[in-house]
Amino acid sequence: MKKLLIVGGVAGGASAAARARRLNEQAEIIMFERGEFVSFANCGLPYHISGEIENRDALVLQTPASFKARFNVDVRVQHEVIAIDKVAKQVSVKHLATGEIYQESYDALLLSPGAAPVIPPIPGLQNPLTFSLRNIPDMDRIMAQLASQKPQHVTVVGGGFIGLEMVEAMRHLGIDVSLVELSDQVMAPVDFEMANMLHKTLCDHGVDLKLNVALQSVEQVESGLQLHLSDGSLLTTQMLITAIGVKPEIGLAVDAGLEIGSRGGIAVNEQMQTSDSAIYAVGDAIESIDFVTGEPVLVPLAGPANRQGRIAANNIFGANESYKRTQGTAICRVFDLAVASTGLSEKRLKQMDIDYDKVYVHGASHAGYFPGAHPVSLKLLFATEDGKIFGAQAVGKDGIDKRIDVLAVALRAGLSVYDLQDLELTYAPPFGSAKDVLNQAGFVAANRLKGDTVLCHSDEVANLAADQVLLDVRNPAELTQVGSIDGAINIPLDQLRQRTDELPKDKQILIFCQVGLRGNVAYRMLHNLGFDAKNLTGGYKTYQMVQAKY
Amino acid sequence: MKKLLIVGGVAGGASAAARARRLNEQAEIIMFERGEFVSFANCGLPYHISGEIENRDALVLQTPASFKARFNVDVRVQHEVIAIDKVAKQVSVKHLATGEIYQESYDALLLSPGAAPVIPPIPGLQNPLTFSLRNIPDMDRIMAQLASQKPQHVTVVGGGFIGLEMVEAMRHLGIDVSLVELSDQVMAPVDFEMANMLHKTLCDHGVDLKLNVALQSVEQVESGLQLHLSDGSLLTTQMLITAIGVKPEIGLAVDAGLEIGSRGGIAVNEQMQTSDSAIYAVGDAIESIDFVTGEPVLVPLAGPANRQGRIAANNIFGANESYKRTQGTAICRVFDLAVASTGLSEKRLKQMDIDYDKVYVHGASHAGYFPGAHPVSLKLLFATEDGKIFGAQAVGKDGIDKRIDVLAVALRAGLSVYDLQDLELTYAPPFGSAKDVLNQAGFVAANRLKGDTVLCHSDEVANLAADQVLLDVRNPAELTQVGSIDGAINIPLDQLRQRTDELPKDKQILIFCQVGLRGNVAYRMLHNLGFDAKNLTGGYKTYQMVQAKY
Repeated sequence: MKKLLIVGGVAGGASAAARARRLNEQAEIIMFERGEFVSFANCGLPYHISGEIENRDALVLQTPASFKARFNVDVRVQHEVIAIDKVAKQVSVKHLATGEIYQESYDALLLSPGAAPVIPPIPGLQNPLTFSLRNIPDMDRIMAQLASQKPQHVTVVGGGFIGLEMVEAMRHLGIDVSLVELSDQVMAPVDFEMANMLHKTLCDHGVDLKLNVALQSVEQVESGLQLHLSDGSLLTTQMLITAIGVKPEIGLAVDAGLEIGSRGGIAVNEQMQTSDSAIYAVGDAIESIDFVTGEPVLVPLAGPANRQGRIAANNIFGANESYKRTQGTAICRVFDLAVASTGLSEKRLKQMDIDYDKVYVHGASHAGYFPGAHPVSLKLLFATEDGKIFGAQAVGKDGIDKRIDVLAVALRAGLSVYDLQDLELTYAPPFGSAKDVLNQAGFVAANRLKGDTVLCHSDEVANLAADQVLLDVRNPAELTQVGSIDGAINIPLDQLRQRTDELPKDKQILIFCQVGLRGNVAYRMLHNLGFDAKNLTGGYKTYQMVQAKY
Repeated sequence: MKKLLIVGGVAGGASAAARARRLNEQAEIIMFERGEFVSFANCGLPYHISGEIENRDALVLQTPASFKARFNVDVRVQHEVIAIDKVAKQVSVKHLATGEIYQESYDALLLSPGAAPVIPPIPGLQNPLTFSLRNIPDMDRIMAQLASQKPQHVTVVGGGFIGLEMVEAMRHLGIDVSLVELSDQVMAPVDFEMANMLHKTLCDHGVDLKLNVALQSVEQVESGLQLHLSDGSLLTTQMLITAIGVKPEIGLAVDAGLEIGSRGGIAVNEQMQTSDSAIYAVGDAIESIDFVTGEPVLVPLAGPANRQGRIAANNIFGANESYKRTQGTAICRVFDLAVASTGLSEKRLKQMDIDYDKVYVHGASHAGYFPGAHPVSLKLLFATEDGKIFGAQAVGKDGIDKRIDVLAVALRAGLSVYDLQDLELTYAPPFGSAKDVLNQAGFVAANRLKGDTVLCHSDEVANLAADQVLLDVRNPAELTQVGSIDGAINIPLDQLRQRTDELPKDKQILIFCQVGLRGNVAYRMLHNLGFDAKNLTGGYKTYQMVQAKY
């Protein structure tokens, strides 16, 4: 390997460049970046807009000069690679400042062009008050607009990571904000009931949340923009931020005749090699393979991009290293909550027609008797056959990253819900519980699979059959405080053994408590006494997550 | 199974009782507890003494009445089981309040007697100003003494979990405290250099830390106690708390002729069954099997005790479930730091003569550009042959529980350091990094095993051979700020490529930077240029951890 060209200087490209130099001191390495910046912290952009990251320079991790000094990489910003000649092994490069076009030859070429914001074909969307956020110049433009125009109301379209972060940033700055989301939930990687906890916190923090609403057209008016929404309403706003998602930047690859995958990303093998053996590709522009299903997926996340860049560099310099698929592990802060997930969602399992089961557990972030414990609401998805973990989602104020990280590793290691029972996790009152929420999830799921518990879900409770009754085993004070479900018999767990004669023997009893734990004790008691019973997994809390309307 | 007796009503016993009732509604279950309390949060005791847990009731998780109501368990507090008749399958019970002794028969017997504080045979130790802490009455006595006598100075003997928590509690109450520790470090489960970070924070928080010092005798004097220490000094104190460790309560088992293991705990098989098939034992009183070595170990921790109680109950009621060994995962808060570990320490690996390797990584608890990131100092121990994880230790202000939890699962799943490279963990700026410290540890360890990096350790740096030179690749400003190592050549990394002529070609170059990252870049550069070099793993920061004297 004598000469390596890299297209794109952010996560994947920059990782590859640094790794390549560590592997080979002599190789010529040139990194082309269309923009002005390389190796910047694009995940940090919303937090500089909000003011939480005060210093803009903190977002620029490397400069062309620092890359040159440390890694002897020739970084050419504002240089766009506009064509690839696979046969001659050379690229055409346009210097954007001068317009000059020149050729550069390569022995290996690495593509890390990233992804571009999706801009839907909405009439009127092209206007000076509409912004998207993908890089530092985008951020600068948004901040300049905020500073000069001082909008009182901003509308964000799209409730994914960037959309939610921008919503929070606006509220942090004291600006009124509407969030317009086409589907029935924000944060597509998690299921509706988990996202519904975010809907609550968004409303609690004064966000005007519009679910199931599409932006149909945009009109410039004197006071700003008038948005025509699919529910027939008009929304006047002073600034519009679109955050509908991103699509792989594949133009260069398409023009060069490289293979494109079924999901619209550049196709690569496990070595990150494209259909041309001298050309590698990494990051948001490529398709990777889903860890659980083996299907191609688009996963525009920083962690995989960095990892792929490193692996591509290793392989370019003679290793034979494989990228081990993508789980899509992700997390997002939404005001006081964190939401995180790994692996497959229930929606995805249904789409793929995979036989799965699920449990919900609401545990504490650390010992309940120690100050500052917060609920951790966990959803665990697993194979009905052998309990293998398919995916997990969690929402809460604290300890969400930890639980999903542990489950991400468990999933990657091929563990089952049975194994979760045995996990030995750190425990001291400020940090955890002797039976962590993850152990509890393992117990509940293993009980379910072994038949020690028969579970039911909120939809069954909400659509009671004629031969079913509801039993609420919470204390009356709790019902007053948080509500219950119409028609449920209330017998507190600690009185149940004495009051079973109040229960019908000829009906199936759907038991619930607040989170599912007391319900399980009641289930076991009634089952052992010969009743036909089921326990609502996750209890009334999960029922509320499913039913609440925002 | 008709009748189950349980000896001991805290973690393991209480878990077993609750599980047993869920499995069987008809069985008679009697739980004997010598003390006044069942199912109390003994891990919380130091935090109620400090005032951090305000409400004493929060520590009492269940009462005899609540156990009866919920689980129909006959809980007999202040009842001590004083003998077991294995042949007749009955126990003798002494009612401590009345002195009455009676027999109770069993079909199955579960022993969960716990462990007692070690009280060493030190002359004068039996005095009214000396305390230990294991249960609620112990706590009450200590708090009454603090309230009535208002000591200005307290001495804690023993730097384990409880010792450290009591030291912190005393400082929290504004009381001067001396910590006397026989060995050269506190917190025996971790290695010296990791504990040394705790030594620093203890001193920073005004603790009079006396390492390598034994308490030889205690004299009561007018002003309190005079302690005679092995360094020849006298220490006057007003209250003494011994926290030297615990030993399994095996008296009952020994008298009954049950098999005792080589480490002095009750011997059990994987089903938690003792040498008598009708008698099970769990918790601090038993020996379990070390997950990595397969050797018997004493692990007095709450998590395993709870898990064992559940498994014993399952097996008593007809399951065939195995306890999956103990890793000893543990965590402790020491003022602003957390220290945690899982698996084997380096000390232990050396004792067992196991072929291991180690790396140190100092990463950030979350993205460095986001406010509030703190260093995570991680030590990773693994097999030289195949990289299998043997153990891990971490110290820092934030994110310590998460990293050790992930590694605890990785160890349990049999993962290697290579697998750590591929872990896909949650990343958003407030929660993690695109390359988490765990990924970094994987990279460093994999580089080491593949021969991509030759590492050295602090001892080699501190004892330089004649044909070795030290190269410090940090910036001069850092040297001024945090110091360096005598005799090291300083060439900042970003100038190194231009200044290699300043380095001797005939000597081995031991490179270091602050944490090891830049050192690795320098290593790769010099290696590729033909120099004989090594990089100090963990850099100057680890060197300081090893060398600092407190």
